[in-house]
Amino acid sequence: MIYGGDYNPEQWPENIWLEDMHILKDAHINSATINVFSWAILQPSENEYDFRMLDKIVSLLTQNNYRIVMGTSTAALPAWMSQRYPDVNRTDFYGLVHKFGHRHNFCPNSPSFRKYEIRLVKQLAERYGQLDSLVCWHISNEYSGECYCENCAKAFRVWLKDKYSTIEAVNQAWNTNLWSHKYYSFEEIIPPNFIGDGIPNEKASFPGLSLDYSRFNSDSILNTFKEEKKAIRLYDAKTPVTTNLMGAYKPLDYFKFAKEMDIISWDSYPTNDTPNSSASMMHDLMRGLKNGQPFMMMEQTPSQQNWQPFNALKLPGQMRNMSYNAIAHGADTVQFFQLRKSIGGAEKFHGAVIDHVGTEEPRVFKEVQQLGNELQKIGTTLLDGITPAKVALLFDWENYWALEYAIGPNLEIKYVDQIQRYYDELYTRNIPIDFVSKESALDSYSIVIAPCLYLLDDKLASKIEAFTESGGIFVTTTMSGLVDSNDNIHLGGYPGPLKKVTGVWVEEFDAMPFTRKIPLHFVANTNGKETGTLLCDIIHPKSADVVAEYGSGVFYEGLPAITRNHFGNGTSFYIGTVLNKQGMKTIFDEILNTAGIKSTYTPEAVSVTLRVNTNGTYIFIINHSNENKHFDLDISGNDILTMTTIQGQIDLAPFGVSIIKSDIAHPLLFS
Amino acid sequence: MIYGGDYNPEQWPENIWLEDMHILKDAHINSATINVFSWAILQPSENEYDFRMLDKIVSLLTQNNYRIVMGTSTAALPAWMSQRYPDVNRTDFYGLVHKFGHRHNFCPNSPSFRKYEIRLVKQLAERYGQLDSLVCWHISNEYSGECYCENCAKAFRVWLKDKYSTIEAVNQAWNTNLWSHKYYSFEEIIPPNFIGDGIPNEKASFPGLSLDYSRFNSDSILNTFKEEKKAIRLYDAKTPVTTNLMGAYKPLDYFKFAKEMDIISWDSYPTNDTPNSSASMMHDLMRGLKNGQPFMMMEQTPSQQNWQPFNALKLPGQMRNMSYNAIAHGADTVQFFQLRKSIGGAEKFHGAVIDHVGTEEPRVFKEVQQLGNELQKIGTTLLDGITPAKVALLFDWENYWALEYAIGPNLEIKYVDQIQRYYDELYTRNIPIDFVSKESALDSYSIVIAPCLYLLDDKLASKIEAFTESGGIFVTTTMSGLVDSNDNIHLGGYPGPLKKVTGVWVEEFDAMPFTRKIPLHFVANTNGKETGTLLCDIIHPKSADVVAEYGSGVFYEGLPAITRNHFGNGTSFYIGTVLNKQGMKTIFDEILNTAGIKSTYTPEAVSVTLRVNTNGTYIFIINHSNENKHFDLDISGNDILTMTTIQGQIDLAPFGVSIIKSDIAHPLLFS
Amino acid sequence: MIYGGDYNPEQWPENIWLEDMHILKDAHINSATINVFSWAILQPSENEYDFRMLDKIVSLLTQNNYRIVMGTSTAALPAWMSQRYPDVNRTDFYGLVHKFGHRHNFCPNSPSFRKYEIRLVKQLAERYGQLDSLVCWHISNEYSGECYCENCAKAFRVWLKDKYSTIEAVNQAWNTNLWSHKYYSFEEIIPPNFIGDGIPNEKASFPGLSLDYSRFNSDSILNTFKEEKKAIRLYDAKTPVTTNLMGAYKPLDYFKFAKEMDIISWDSYPTNDTPNSSASMMHDLMRGLKNGQPFMMMEQTPSQQNWQPFNALKLPGQMRNMSYNAIAHGADTVQFFQLRKSIGGAEKFHGAVIDHVGTEEPRVFKEVQQLGNELQKIGTTLLDGITPAKVALLFDWENYWALEYAIGPNLEIKYVDQIQRYYDELYTRNIPIDFVSKESALDSYSIVIAPCLYLLDDKLASKIEAFTESGGIFVTTTMSGLVDSNDNIHLGGYPGPLKKVTGVWVEEFDAMPFTRKIPLHFVANTNGKETGTLLCDIIHPKSADVVAEYGSGVFYEGLPAITRNHFGNGTSFYIGTVLNKQGMKTIFDEILNTAGIKSTYTPEAVSVTLRVNTNGTYIFIINHSNENKHFDLDISGNDILTMTTIQGQIDLAPFGVSIIKSDIAHPLLFS
Repeated sequence: MIYGGDYNPEQWPENIWLEDMHILKDAHINSATINVFSWAILQPSENEYDFRMLDKIVSLLTQNNYRIVMGTSTAALPAWMSQRYPDVNRTDFYGLVHKFGHRHNFCPNSPSFRKYEIRLVKQLAERYGQLDSLVCWHISNEYSGECYCENCAKAFRVWLKDKYSTIEAVNQAWNTNLWSHKYYSFEEIIPPNFIGDGIPNEKASFPGLSLDYSRFNSDSILNTFKEEKKAIRLYDAKTPVTTNLMGAYKPLDYFKFAKEMDIISWDSYPTNDTPNSSASMMHDLMRGLKNGQPFMMMEQTPSQQNWQPFNALKLPGQMRNMSYNAIAHGADTVQFFQLRKSIGGAEKFHGAVIDHVGTEEPRVFKEVQQLGNELQKIGTTLLDGITPAKVALLFDWENYWALEYAIGPNLEIKYVDQIQRYYDELYTRNIPIDFVSKESALDSYSIVIAPCLYLLDDKLASKIEAFTESGGIFVTTTMSGLVDSNDNIHLGGYPGPLKKVTGVWVEEFDAMPFTRKIPLHFVANTNGKETGTLLCDIIHPKSADVVAEYGSGVFYEGLPAITRNHFGNGTSFYIGTVLNKQGMKTIFDEILNTAGIKSTYTPEAVSVTLRVNTNGTYIFIINHSNENKHFDLDISGNDILTMTTIQGQIDLAPFGVSIIKSDIAHPLLFS
Repeated sequence: MIYGGDYNPEQWPENIWLEDMHILKDAHINSATINVFSWAILQPSENEYDFRMLDKIVSLLTQNNYRIVMGTSTAALPAWMSQRYPDVNRTDFYGLVHKFGHRHNFCPNSPSFRKYEIRLVKQLAERYGQLDSLVCWHISNEYSGECYCENCAKAFRVWLKDKYSTIEAVNQAWNTNLWSHKYYSFEEIIPPNFIGDGIPNEKASFPGLSLDYSRFNSDSILNTFKEEKKAIRLYDAKTPVTTNLMGAYKPLDYFKFAKEMDIISWDSYPTNDTPNSSASMMHDLMRGLKNGQPFMMMEQTPSQQNWQPFNALKLPGQMRNMSYNAIAHGADTVQFFQLRKSIGGAEKFHGAVIDHVGTEEPRVFKEVQQLGNELQKIGTTLLDGITPAKVALLFDWENYWALEYAIGPNLEIKYVDQIQRYYDELYTRNIPIDFVSKESALDSYSIVIAPCLYLLDDKLASKIEAFTESGGIFVTTTMSGLVDSNDNIHLGGYPGPLKKVTGVWVEEFDAMPFTRKIPLHFVANTNGKETGTLLCDIIHPKSADVVAEYGSGVFYEGLPAITRNHFGNGTSFYIGTVLNKQGMKTIFDEILNTAGIKSTYTPEAVSVTLRVNTNGTYIFIINHSNENKHFDLDISGNDILTMTTIQGQIDLAPFGVSIIKSDIAHPLLFS
Repeated sequence: MIYGGDYNPEQWPENIWLEDMHILKDAHINSATINVFSWAILQPSENEYDFRMLDKIVSLLTQNNYRIVMGTSTAALPAWMSQRYPDVNRTDFYGLVHKFGHRHNFCPNSPSFRKYEIRLVKQLAERYGQLDSLVCWHISNEYSGECYCENCAKAFRVWLKDKYSTIEAVNQAWNTNLWSHKYYSFEEIIPPNFIGDGIPNEKASFPGLSLDYSRFNSDSILNTFKEEKKAIRLYDAKTPVTTNLMGAYKPLDYFKFAKEMDIISWDSYPTNDTPNSSASMMHDLMRGLKNGQPFMMMEQTPSQQNWQPFNALKLPGQMRNMSYNAIAHGADTVQFFQLRKSIGGAEKFHGAVIDHVGTEEPRVFKEVQQLGNELQKIGTTLLDGITPAKVALLFDWENYWALEYAIGPNLEIKYVDQIQRYYDELYTRNIPIDFVSKESALDSYSIVIAPCLYLLDDKLASKIEAFTESGGIFVTTTMSGLVDSNDNIHLGGYPGPLKKVTGVWVEEFDAMPFTRKIPLHFVANTNGKETGTLLCDIIHPKSADVVAEYGSGVFYEGLPAITRNHFGNGTSFYIGTVLNKQGMKTIFDEILNTAGIKSTYTPEAVSVTLRVNTNGTYIFIINHSNENKHFDLDISGNDILTMTTIQGQIDLAPFGVSIIKSDIAHPLLFS
């Protein structure tokens, strides 16, 4: 297993490099990610390159048997380039033309940037592509942001011509007859931005335009990745190529990125108050990007972050806990940002394996060392494990953009929040979950859940129908089926192309003050603690039957809030409001019962997941709390960390982890 | 009565147009507002016009006997114009030059805009001005915003030369000897804006300058209206011309607009938490713009809005309730935005008569239909009714601007808030209220109330003195009489030119934390629940006597908070603090008693208003709540909705409305 | 004593000037600050000057025996200059190029500004430098802000070349190998700003760069002061020169300014909720700027301010109270902004000696008059008094900037807040405090306190060591000793160069949610109410011993929170967290006991300070509350205000002040 992290020794004298080699070795670190932000060192001017320092770093690491993840250094521009070729700089949403500073600062459609980017990457690939110690190429870094410059505007017009052919098709797609926006030529189109739209970009004045620009911007950045990868492949045909992603980062369509990446890698930075279910959901989303293929956890902090309002230390054992949790959800590497703390700059208070003190004394170092020791012992045992799941959550970036560009009905409907609510219910039950895209095959799942599937085309609707017809269970919610891929309404009644499979017509959707709760009455259950919030759809069942009704306080009291529809051999559920936890529990008792999927409740803050590879089936039982946990679980096998035998009884120390090689291939708790 | 709304069929295929004709007919809709945002369709380039689609729409509507409110389409620029003639685009307060996007985006002083604007309107007037179905011209749309471009700067200098003749007069007016702002030439003057003043425009670095710019900007926008109207009149001598206003919208001096408009129209969009008194005040303000002349309610939503944080449905009966409330306060039309929901764009989730489902099934459609049925029966019965009022509230846009540009003494003194407090007290008592401008004749009123009359000139002061001297009752408050029309202080003691009529000298005004309450002691009343907030004037009565004193907790305890002054045959009241509801009740018991005006208390959430026309006197009794209301009221007559006879007993269903043709011309409850 | 204020008669007709002379005389006002913002009047164009109005004002004041504080008028640009020489205008942090407006608007590196600035000042100095009535030159006004224009960028590069000689030294200092920021030429460097760094300037993307720019900007503004002073000295060799400072104003290094100023002056504007200890700390900081030399309180408001959200009146007696409090902390003048209220503009609601009413009737005038009467009687008695202090608080602007540019660990660590907490503890005990800079001699102090001494170089560390070694007590805290003067980490363990003197190694610093409290256990005290917040250092005592430990709730429970180290003949204390009031009390009981410094507790809201001059020792006992205070105090002497003898019993009216000439030179309560 790769156990390493970012290493930026350019900042300190070479005598420290040598010390680092020993200290990191003591921590069982076996790899280093280098050259992530060194462009200015590598290229002093247009035609001058200087690889002396990088050669030294590479050769030192190689001599000391470290594996190398090699950055391409293109995520931050050199000062000279920013100054001499201003087209490399971005223009922001407010029309401000940026100058040199910060990082992640290049315009993806800048001719100068693209020229020098590829030249550099070719040189790197030629020089280091055949290194034995090279395990991975790491292109750029945390791709992010948008540019609104003239070059982007031009490229956007080309992109639009490719997509639409005629300007009339653009007018149709964007419904430009509204508000006098009809275009007569592609040249009249400018990117959506503050000085055009006059509103901040959370909402869209012309959603069709904004949606296409989001697609275009994501594609533009992806193009730089593809070009760099192509340049690498000229000299290195085999080393895997990745870039480090950032979970549910909104501006980039990671499913599209995933197709071009050999392996997914991502940076896991839960904030102080991120619940573990949310951190885990991000791992699962990353695992889903390439159909369940394991990923690299490219970055996590050994302890403290620095960019939050307050940056708490990770508690003793917590970093180990979070590392195993990443593995439990599909990670095949554990990597840190960073191996040594920088001596100056914006990140000098960000945690590192080697702290400013420069010794092995700190607690944080010792915890890294302990984990390194364990991982070394585990070796390749867990690698390439996949997580078989019967439940899929549909995640779609285009829908994410469109849903949140929409003005109305309720500002608090946020896509990732809504997804998280469904994830949490399954997480609590320790049911494995796959994230799927609109292009994924659904056949292998028993249940597909698509919350707030606002934007969908007929193709996806047909796929959902086919899935349900052939026996699947489809679950969707309020704010679904509303618009086509241009963000134009599916006329003829909500939820548009989902009317057939859900068997309902949604007449209106009422929006609530953010904290108001509407009581719900489940037909089959009179618990009475279920409530709806934010939106309440007024639903007319056509072929569906009623699962829950609205209670008192609204004029549609007694009308359905949740319906179920038998469709072919399958069933669909339409959930017309945003449920509280009890509401989720009640409806999923029913849904999972229908599907015959078992829930495994564990004590609070304990999770159970599995990975299966050619070595066997491994169950990860993880205590995310700082308290002891003792409980029974229907599992038997060998704990590969303690080398003890487990027979149904689990004892976990605070932040404790148990990885059990199951005695049977298909443990009952996941059946 | 005009019963209609905005109709934008350009967005959908013609087969839908035909369906719309039938559906709208079923709802008793009799008119459509068209062509509000179609410039880009009408004019594909500089010299090319294309009226084919508009001709079709007009002829379809005409054939189907709909009346037409014809927009001029100039509220949103075509893309080609924005691109080829950048002077049409606005420059914002932060100096950012805008590009194409959104709407309400033209610079009112752009030569290109003005040229193409007038050319278009002439063509429209020539083509459609003699249509029988045409009932009204609707110029532009919701005029709003400001521009700070170079053309505006130039026009501003011309405007200033017209007003002041010499630069020395400008220096005097703006007190430029402060802070080294003395100008030696008009060319040195730039519009107030962030890159000059360095502060956001809520407050003014140089209030004299900012105030003149507010006047100039309002005049500039009004000029575009006047020019369009002039262009229409070349071809159509008689059809009334309007533009849709927006209540107490701050940047435009609607009293000045009203002079140029043939009929007032406005868009009523109370938000989720707007109290009915506030919605009603806006109707009354609009009614006041042309001396009580009835207005068009050009827009309201049939149910949901989309641009609020959450957009609740209107409850069953609520749209009907709000429609009648508009009529009760002076509306002669009920119009909706919009007749059919748009299929894409920023407003696709805004309510409409015909929803995306495209049928007559929805509740909202049925409510529109029911109201249409009623209005058809009522016919012209209520039209042209006026509301005789003995109490006037003075509203002045220049004062609004100046008061809120002032830095100090208390940020929470907002003009419309302060007006609303006085309106509410009279509203609770069901006393008819007229809004008047500083140019209105006051003779017909018993009481004139001028809250926070911060800016006034000697002319207005004399008018107030004359009104009071001849027997009127004048009520004013803290923050009054402070500055002249240049925002320079009336030296010699507050409240400046109102000292004589109020008989007081205000030495200081203490400002309170926003939630602090100061107890008040009324001389004639020891209820003890009256309090003052925000500001407490320290008042020295000269000829006035004391009505209420400050209680404990302030160093001026025992000094007057409210005074009364006998002046000629009349009386004035000076209210030196911001009163709570009980304070308002106590002081108005006295004021109204002095005037001999009767209050009519009704159950909470029930209002009573009247309109009088040549058909008779009509009393509107409206239940703004979702509960039944039963109560006695000294009224007899025939309910024109139920055709029943009312004899002192009122029964109102939730959101119920009763319109009673009074048996006597001057009902006692309004005496 | 100078008793006066700003006077701007240019705004009103000359007949008012004459009235003012009499009214101010009646208030015992003896001086006027003039010509602060008159540049546009003085210089109508490039080569034209007009001193007629200023001559008149000067001669009127002189004839009426007022002393004159003469402004140089350079704090606000004339409109013509802003327009004809745009380089005088600033460019802001967001890259917006400013235009004419507001004040404090000049670019300090503008060639045009510098040229006309010096020309004007020479003319003023030549014309008025030998006036008998002239007591002080007042250069510019409230220097503030930053500029980011091209001229500043160029000047910054020159400044950097002076400082660093080579670009390689810059790269080293700013650690530019991080994030690809390596420069190959000075020409590549641009000022830190939003369009470069992409983040607001509270935090720094490249702290080394930002820190140098803060130094450069402060130096740039100081240069304009130095140049103006030089111009004055060509014609006037002796009159003291000052500029009015603003307390702990962040952007300017006032210790550097102080070296160039003949006398410190400052503007004291506590806001509505400023505690008296905070207002007093600012006086003491100003007194510290020139090693304890008395200062001018150049501005305070007689009553109301206008720029706060609400602007409360000063209560009767409160202005007098605050004036004496300024004197008690080192002021030798009492001056107001302003002598007469302006008639228009941004500040027309700001308090003044003569109000808009223009008479002597107002309460506020009478209070000014009463105080004037007293000060006239006191005469020169208190002048030149110094305050002997045994305790010093280190304040350093470079540290202020660097600490707050740092990203992490806790956003709520604000420099002035942290200083204030230590000041408050000593203030409560009525212990005199000196503010010292990093260049001050420390020998005379028993205790030196340096909270959050984040940035320090070895020189300062050595000085602290020497101070402690020779018997002093040094107190420092969390966030100390971290970086060198380039904001690069002192490698080898925290607190860097303070490790030796404190005898500790700080391994980690944990950051807390803003309101979380960690219990502390003092070894010598089990009061149990002490807590820490925001940050908790994990401390390893090397030679130090433990004073307090962390209590339950953190994983480092039982580890030291506060340590004490014997070092040579002295002692140091390291306080590893942010203490609550009880924590401060407990630790300072110990620290002061060690130093043998006595605390004098007085009733709440009563302060005791002293000043000593050749006339004797004066004790100021001040009641900052609106209640009577009676208490015993070990003091005897003569109250110079009441001319009564005090023998240990103090009676103070609300806001009352007693100034006692002590019977003994070194009163016991300060021993």
